[in-house]
Amino acid sequence: MSTSAGRAEDFLASALTTISGQTEDPDLFLKQRFTASSYQVDEIPLDTLGAWRLGDRLEHNTGRFFTIEGLSVRTSFGPNPQWCQPIIVQPDIGILGILVKKIDGVHHFLMQVKMEPGNSTLVQYAATVQATQSNYQRVHGGRPTPYLEYFLKGSRGHILVDRLLSEHASWYLHKRNRNMIVEIPPDEDVEERDDFAWLTLGQLRRQLALGNVNMNARTVLACVSYDGARAPQAVTGFHAQTVASHNAQRSDAHLAEAMTWLIDQKETYTLDVKRIGLSEMDGWAADDGSIRHRDGLYFRIIGLSVAATSREVGTWSQPMLEPVPGNLVAFLCQRQNGVLRFLTQAMIQPGSTDRLELGASIQLAPGYCRDARDLPPLVEYLDSAVGKVRMKSLQSEDGGRFHRADTEHLVIELPEDHHVEAPENYRWMTLGLLGRLMQSGYYLNVEARSLMACLL
Amino acid sequence: MSTSAGRAEDFLASALTTISGQTEDPDLFLKQRFTASSYQVDEIPLDTLGAWRLGDRLEHNTGRFFTIEGLSVRTSFGPNPQWCQPIIVQPDIGILGILVKKIDGVHHFLMQVKMEPGNSTLVQYAATVQATQSNYQRVHGGRPTPYLEYFLKGSRGHILVDRLLSEHASWYLHKRNRNMIVEIPPDEDVEERDDFAWLTLGQLRRQLALGNVNMNARTVLACVSYDGARAPQAVTGFHAQTVASHNAQRSDAHLAEAMTWLIDQKETYTLDVKRIGLSEMDGWAADDGSIRHRDGLYFRIIGLSVAATSREVGTWSQPMLEPVPGNLVAFLCQRQNGVLRFLTQAMIQPGSTDRLELGASIQLAPGYCRDARDLPPLVEYLDSAVGKVRMKSLQSEDGGRFHRADTEHLVIELPEDHHVEAPENYRWMTLGLLGRLMQSGYYLNVEARSLMACLL
Repeated sequence: MSTSAGRAEDFLASALTTISGQTEDPDLFLKQRFTASSYQVDEIPLDTLGAWRLGDRLEHNTGRFFTIEGLSVRTSFGPNPQWCQPIIVQPDIGILGILVKKIDGVHHFLMQVKMEPGNSTLVQYAATVQATQSNYQRVHGGRPTPYLEYFLKGSRGHILVDRLLSEHASWYLHKRNRNMIVEIPPDEDVEERDDFAWLTLGQLRRQLALGNVNMNARTVLACVSYDGARAPQAVTGFHAQTVASHNAQRSDAHLAEAMTWLIDQKETYTLDVKRIGLSEMDGWAADDGSIRHRDGLYFRIIGLSVAATSREVGTWSQPMLEPVPGNLVAFLCQRQNGVLRFLTQAMIQPGSTDRLELGASIQLAPGYCRDARDLPPLVEYLDSAVGKVRMKSLQSEDGGRFHRADTEHLVIELPEDHHVEAPENYRWMTLGLLGRLMQSGYYLNVEARSLMACLL
Repeated sequence: MSTSAGRAEDFLASALTTISGQTEDPDLFLKQRFTASSYQVDEIPLDTLGAWRLGDRLEHNTGRFFTIEGLSVRTSFGPNPQWCQPIIVQPDIGILGILVKKIDGVHHFLMQVKMEPGNSTLVQYAATVQATQSNYQRVHGGRPTPYLEYFLKGSRGHILVDRLLSEHASWYLHKRNRNMIVEIPPDEDVEERDDFAWLTLGQLRRQLALGNVNMNARTVLACVSYDGARAPQAVTGFHAQTVASHNAQRSDAHLAEAMTWLIDQKETYTLDVKRIGLSEMDGWAADDGSIRHRDGLYFRIIGLSVAATSREVGTWSQPMLEPVPGNLVAFLCQRQNGVLRFLTQAMIQPGSTDRLELGASIQLAPGYCRDARDLPPLVEYLDSAVGKVRMKSLQSEDGGRFHRADTEHLVIELPEDHHVEAPENYRWMTLGLLGRLMQSGYYLNVEARSLMACLL
């Protein structure tokens, strides 16, 4: 053991870090980092956000970061053919990057303990780098982003994963981030920093189960074990049995069939979205310091004032999207002819870059249901005794944009002899096939990818 | 020889068709089909289009087909950071499908002689099926689309190619079509029809060189020989030498490197587009029966009245986009260490689904150049004696939407010892790599794909 930082407040944390920087007790490290900083988060009216201006859209006075605008949506998908909603517009491409290094022959992931104002638990393990362009170009005049150089053109390490993947398409318009895993050689020294620790995949798995890994890290981790080509192989446990039996079937033919089916779905459903002014949104009001639907549907846009010592800047205020609580995402899986398959659905979401992506079997957002008739198909499996719960955890969405957005994650395994009656836009797929689709573009939505990360 | 149709006017054409339906003289077949029908195309004012209404947008009174709307564009790419322009919005996914069958052991492609009102030459070889959803769902109450069943879910043949690919992103907003090649067994009979003929790839090549193959067929044909996995191998001549030497290099690593480079480019350039009303477009007027830029830039939106006997409906009128003439698209290619590579550029176009796609080395649109300072990089190669012209032909854009939109297609081979000074968003790629990118999503723009079809 060695102490890597001099400050007294860091003593306990760094005492838990070995010479190589590995962390023996990630639970404790998280707690220590939490207590080493102080946080204060309060809801405030949108018109008191200082640098943010609420007009026909909500925008920062630099014109950077993101805007919140109105969106008019028409679609033939789902129970509601037409609606208006606010949407976050953030066209720049952020970097979500995890640095990987073999320590004593075992892959370790450099994780950052990060405070996000929207999280219910406040601090979580995040990717090594989680930065918007505004962020790392330091528009806010804050501190430089640590370890960023490992992910930038010209100075980056050996790329294991590098993909543009979508973000929440119900809340963001056409948003995607760059998901990267970069490996450096075992003998390359990496500067040690407070708030950062090297975790093994086993340790990460435990933190995932505890809900201690943030959304941005989960979407990167979802790329780990399903990418045969570039990523470190790290497949054990529940997942191993599926991969082993499926490796042989990961053929181009299956991929091509899935693509054809996906194009069929894109042909079947329509989506037409148009950015409009916030004041043009039918059914919405902005008269109490927040932007809210008159029937309490969807979500609210609220203001938050944040004081923290562990972020790039110490205090700030910003808008946040606060969904109606109770979101849930669930995979139904089933062994079919000896092969474990997951039920996916082609799902239109208003902010999708390419109309639709694959979602989990059940994606339940109470804010989007006016009454029981709006419930999505297959919700009956949530209360049914027919399946066996293989995974259950509460995970938070990106606490940098979403306030108290916790989503229950569930994987339910159905008995082999059970027949699921699903609509035409549903299809059983192996994890191997889902992994290949994830490599190819915008094919798996972030909710499904988050579930896949939890299956690591 | 046998006569397949009874009508006298078809005699000459069908006399050229063998028992199997192959055509011995595609040039003559085209001419015969042209004279067998009569066409009358006239420009008329937009406000006399009958079923079309010119208001804040230009739309059909059924709400179908397409609309023409205003688009406000901001981008860090190119000389012009901000402009407004009309754009065609057509969210449905059309089918561009070619039926293939082995006749006497040789692949034949079922091509349709099609009249398109915008074409300079009026009739051309089109894909077997070229149909928008409005089209084949018969919104206009016209005749059913022949051979459509071979491309529809449930009744389709063996799929060789099935991809969503982008259309002109300068003129269409987020438009993509389904490009399909479907093969039926040699012993399966296909109904013979006027206006259709089975062409070999050799015959198609000649028609391509003559500019007799329409844009929609070219984008399908671009998928033929570069897709090792599913398409019939049909690689000879100029192309063969490149493919042969490159097969060994079509590795996943090269694809991954290209993807990383493309993501770098997407990160570098910004694009923000917003649909606005036609009357909100700065610099545009609609006071002479057309919508035009006050300085004559970009293109005009005009009305056309069309009378023809060979389309689904005999007479109609519709809006058309007429570009400033003189468009050109050119590939520079060069043998580098024994390998033929093509210079591509990451290119932002306002209607791109995912911000940018790869374009050809030079894509020159005089309508987008206010003066010489707006000329794209590398145009000096068009007048230079340094390279050798390997391919040159005049090709038309989709004559169903674009009026007299002819684009010169050029491939210039540079000597091995010549160094091209190109900006950072340019990259040399083999045809094999371009083919793999074309398989993976929206990575090659339609202009570059059209050039690739001409390299067949």
